[in-house]
Amino acid sequence: MTPWNSANLGDSVSSIDTPALILDLDAFERNIELMASALKEKGIRLRAHAKSHKCPEIAKIQIAKGAVGICCQKVSEAAVFVEAGIKDVLVTNQIISPNKVKRLFELARSARMGILVDHPKQVAVLLAQARVTGLEIDVYVEVNVGSNRCGVSPGKDAVALARLIAESAPLRFAGLHCYQGSAQHLRLPAERKTAIQEASKLAKEVRDALVAEGMACPRVTGAGTGTFLNECDSGIFDEVQAGSYIFMDRDYSENQLETNDLHFEHALFIQATVMSYPEPHRAVLDAGLKAFSVDSGMPAVWKRPDLKLTKASDEHGVLEVSDPSRIALGDRLTLIPGHCDPTVNLYDALVCIRNNRVEAIWPISARGALL
Amino acid sequence: MTPWNSANLGDSVSSIDTPALILDLDAFERNIELMASALKEKGIRLRAHAKSHKCPEIAKIQIAKGAVGICCQKVSEAAVFVEAGIKDVLVTNQIISPNKVKRLFELARSARMGILVDHPKQVAVLLAQARVTGLEIDVYVEVNVGSNRCGVSPGKDAVALARLIAESAPLRFAGLHCYQGSAQHLRLPAERKTAIQEASKLAKEVRDALVAEGMACPRVTGAGTGTFLNECDSGIFDEVQAGSYIFMDRDYSENQLETNDLHFEHALFIQATVMSYPEPHRAVLDAGLKAFSVDSGMPAVWKRPDLKLTKASDEHGVLEVSDPSRIALGDRLTLIPGHCDPTVNLYDALVCIRNNRVEAIWPISARGALL
Repeated sequence: MTPWNSANLGDSVSSIDTPALILDLDAFERNIELMASALKEKGIRLRAHAKSHKCPEIAKIQIAKGAVGICCQKVSEAAVFVEAGIKDVLVTNQIISPNKVKRLFELARSARMGILVDHPKQVAVLLAQARVTGLEIDVYVEVNVGSNRCGVSPGKDAVALARLIAESAPLRFAGLHCYQGSAQHLRLPAERKTAIQEASKLAKEVRDALVAEGMACPRVTGAGTGTFLNECDSGIFDEVQAGSYIFMDRDYSENQLETNDLHFEHALFIQATVMSYPEPHRAVLDAGLKAFSVDSGMPAVWKRPDLKLTKASDEHGVLEVSDPSRIALGDRLTLIPGHCDPTVNLYDALVCIRNNRVEAIWPISARGALL
Repeated sequence: MTPWNSANLGDSVSSIDTPALILDLDAFERNIELMASALKEKGIRLRAHAKSHKCPEIAKIQIAKGAVGICCQKVSEAAVFVEAGIKDVLVTNQIISPNKVKRLFELARSARMGILVDHPKQVAVLLAQARVTGLEIDVYVEVNVGSNRCGVSPGKDAVALARLIAESAPLRFAGLHCYQGSAQHLRLPAERKTAIQEASKLAKEVRDALVAEGMACPRVTGAGTGTFLNECDSGIFDEVQAGSYIFMDRDYSENQLETNDLHFEHALFIQATVMSYPEPHRAVLDAGLKAFSVDSGMPAVWKRPDLKLTKASDEHGVLEVSDPSRIALGDRLTLIPGHCDPTVNLYDALVCIRNNRVEAIWPISARGALL
């Protein structure tokens, strides 16, 4: 726990204590609207990925704007959202420990819960708990459509796994989860298009094989902020799991777009202060590895091409200064995180601003929910 | 907040819910003893760096074993330790915002507080608050001795800054802070020795210049786990700020040691579970970027050279498996974090184990204390 808050309601932005995680409400709301209207037009469901924000206030806004529910990555994360009143949560991950399975079914008393499998053993632990509780949950087969992380290979193993679930009432075979994670940050539109065409082909093969065997395949779900328009156009996906579109980080903004792509705006920032300025071409920020993640590279400095973050240690960010006349000790700078999800997970709250004032402070209630 | 805990007191290690941050108490206590006895023998003070652990229980053990106090990097972190009863805290960082300075002086009512400066403006904001409150604090001049992060250049600017502090009662000029951060992970002992010889030479020049002008230089403080024996041998440093020695991460263990170096043991681990095993040579752990930091590279798998973490996404760690006969879905593995400090900052508690049982659960009370 931090012993004091970065900001209080009504504060001016310039009085926010740094480092702080900032949400620009106008940009955030435009991103929410843009996604909602695009998917509505296409007749594709949005199941918003809440691992990006871990914030029930945001999940409620997404659902109010048409999302059918949320997905998240951990059962403990799901617990936070169910507790906050979210009624439809898909945990887009595998679980194998009986304790987590037990927790998942506890949540199924209050919400429609879903989970992924890619091995019969996971089905067995789920089924055991389903029989104990008599509760139904949605079970999706995760198919490896090119990201080479989790997921059963497309083909007979995928079909057999779906059949196993379908024969394991009260488990409910809910469909296929086909997320092509490694396509999200391919920089060229044509690269992303090709990757999702291949993923869609594999997803279709599995779905068609299920149908050929007389099984229903209620849903094909997947996609992320980088590629979802391709999944929408595939004719096979009927649900999109985008998460980062609400925030847009530096990494996503480096994807090249086509004219008909949607332009989401940066809405998530870190405010930081120049706490040391020891040399004309080197300044040091009060934000480092505990204030932003660097797995997708350094944050960018917002609207300041003259400043470049070159190094981060635990609590220091070193800036290369090209024009010393434009920076001074004590200056406040705004950073665009390299990768939004693990950055959000470092903070207890989002400081939400509009018209240069703190309009809301939203707890990141599922921060640290690792289990 | 996670809605449930990884472990309860008395649990067997194999029942800890994963991912979890584990402290091997036997190894930890040996590390504590090894450092305490080495520094006692050399007559050098230990001011343990608490940014590594953020845990008051650990700070108290370090002080009980002879540390004169702690250092940390943020005023909000210091607040957690002062609240927990620590009486001597040096914030090894610069601050410039009046709000942080005010908080620092509030802590000076309960503990001896110290802070670094590398610019006269920082002295001015400290002095303003010192005059308002009438409270004394220790102010150290940070000298850039080679790490090229913060710190005034050795030479006349450093001397002038020390004089400014000395003339700014009730601020107290406490000495020089000379931390050579970039030397800590030089792999060869000779490289580390050379870097600290150079740092010590620069520190000595500044100290001698102060003495030549008739000023006292009460202390020269610095050093980290990678180099502290070199600082001990320098004849100029009289206080060591090591932090990571209690845990030892993968990055530190890659430093080559000489025969007379101290062998600290790995004491900090992450327990993780194979949640998906889709291909013979690819397994997936339930721990990713939100369970460990990757700024210093991937975690190693403890005592399992057959397994290599090759990729991490938010909640997935992808393992390259060289011998499929040695791993199965549901297996528990133990990881050695690449970098301990930002990894600890991801967890709410340390699960402390001995003899295969959970002996204690220590809150990481200053987790997320960024201000």
